[in-house]
Amino acid sequence: MKPSLSILKIGGNVIENKAELSQFLTLFSKLEGFKILVHGGGKLATEIGKKMGIESKMVGGRRITDEQSLEVITMVYAGLTNKRVVAELQARNCNAIGLSGADGNTIQAHKRPVKDIDYGFAGDVDGVNEGLLSHLLTLGLTPVFCAMTHDGKGQLLNTNADTIASEVAIGLGERYETTLYYCFEKNGVLKDVSDDRSVIQHIDTATYNELLEQGIIADGMLPKMANCFHALNNGVTKVCIGNMAMLTQNEKLYTTITL
Amino acid sequence: MKPSLSILKIGGNVIENKAELSQFLTLFSKLEGFKILVHGGGKLATEIGKKMGIESKMVGGRRITDEQSLEVITMVYAGLTNKRVVAELQARNCNAIGLSGADGNTIQAHKRPVKDIDYGFAGDVDGVNEGLLSHLLTLGLTPVFCAMTHDGKGQLLNTNADTIASEVAIGLGERYETTLYYCFEKNGVLKDVSDDRSVIQHIDTATYNELLEQGIIADGMLPKMANCFHALNNGVTKVCIGNMAMLTQNEKLYTTITL
Repeated sequence: MKPSLSILKIGGNVIENKAELSQFLTLFSKLEGFKILVHGGGKLATEIGKKMGIESKMVGGRRITDEQSLEVITMVYAGLTNKRVVAELQARNCNAIGLSGADGNTIQAHKRPVKDIDYGFAGDVDGVNEGLLSHLLTLGLTPVFCAMTHDGKGQLLNTNADTIASEVAIGLGERYETTLYYCFEKNGVLKDVSDDRSVIQHIDTATYNELLEQGIIADGMLPKMANCFHALNNGVTKVCIGNMAMLTQNEKLYTTITL
Repeated sequence: MKPSLSILKIGGNVIENKAELSQFLTLFSKLEGFKILVHGGGKLATEIGKKMGIESKMVGGRRITDEQSLEVITMVYAGLTNKRVVAELQARNCNAIGLSGADGNTIQAHKRPVKDIDYGFAGDVDGVNEGLLSHLLTLGLTPVFCAMTHDGKGQLLNTNADTIASEVAIGLGERYETTLYYCFEKNGVLKDVSDDRSVIQHIDTATYNELLEQGIIADGMLPKMANCFHALNNGVTKVCIGNMAMLTQNEKLYTTITL
């Protein structure tokens, strides 16, 4: 039997609230088995960019990463946020090691080709160094990824944290029984966006197609769910979506997605 | 026989000059055997702090690390500089992995006690996780340290890069035949500071004491040399001081220090 591996992604809302982050890191540090954390951190980057006189450019909710934005992102994602998380996990006896995709060549990517929109230094993932990640896990380390990759030619690239989480889960799917957790502010995938208790507890391929037809999965949930099924179709065992309480044994209110 | 390990420290002058850094990284990537890089980067931190409206406070050439400065340092040392160096080394087929002392709990430190001066979040090193570093080297990785440590209780600390280099060299001295290289802008320890060709090619304990008496080792060179002998007295085989040309086979003009 393959050993189990949990890959958790937390977004800006958790990362940038000190009390929530602390609570999350305590839950995370207590999780048993092999685990990997992936964090975003877009809001703080926008804020620090502003202090430096650099305006964030967004198109359709996605960041346009010009050279100056890349500098800010490298400072905030790989520096400030990543090292704070690592130091806090160390304080909780979790032997964390912070990584960008350039470190140990863990995630290779290429600059997104320009079509309608030039996203600048945005990276689309080509592959994950699953051999090295597996070695690090075996050494008792917990990798903590920021949302950055590299192209192998010296260029750092900004890469969506959801994508990093799913690609890492896919890359390690052959060696591990992988569960992917997307932690966000909501309780899960909701039947009615205005009702936080209307969580759909289980989604599989058939119900996914129904939900799509009914228009229940829409807006920001569309790429998130596409990402989940991309992972499931490529060897990931299970995806869970919900708030951090899903990491506790007694919380039943979150969405589990399987094929 | 123990395997050999080179630990190189580069300062701000190399880090912040794009052409020099590129040249250095090419030389470094070609070095054979196990190797570790340690980088400073104080000038860029000062510059970025200024852009954010944060003034650097220095006393006697040493940075006073208040909370805001620590933020800037974490962004610049662990983020911008470290990841740029790592990505550039990856482009040179050197499998670099960027680390602060918090990552993998590689360097534990404590906040410097307040005596005459409160240095703020400055860390004095307690120990190095030589077991993990040795594992990383065996995996074919090249650790790249920024000048940061942690206290194990969630606090990141600013730590002198020269000290990090010597402490890492000491920590690994039992397992490896360690050579410590301090790369800076001068050709080595000079007999006459105004004559860049007056390099003292070899210094040992006896000549060190003579040079101290004659006042030839003074000012900024005093703590640097004390650091070197501290390393040598604690298991480091050899220390070399000079500009990056000392990494080439044909350059003879640099200072070698042994006990």
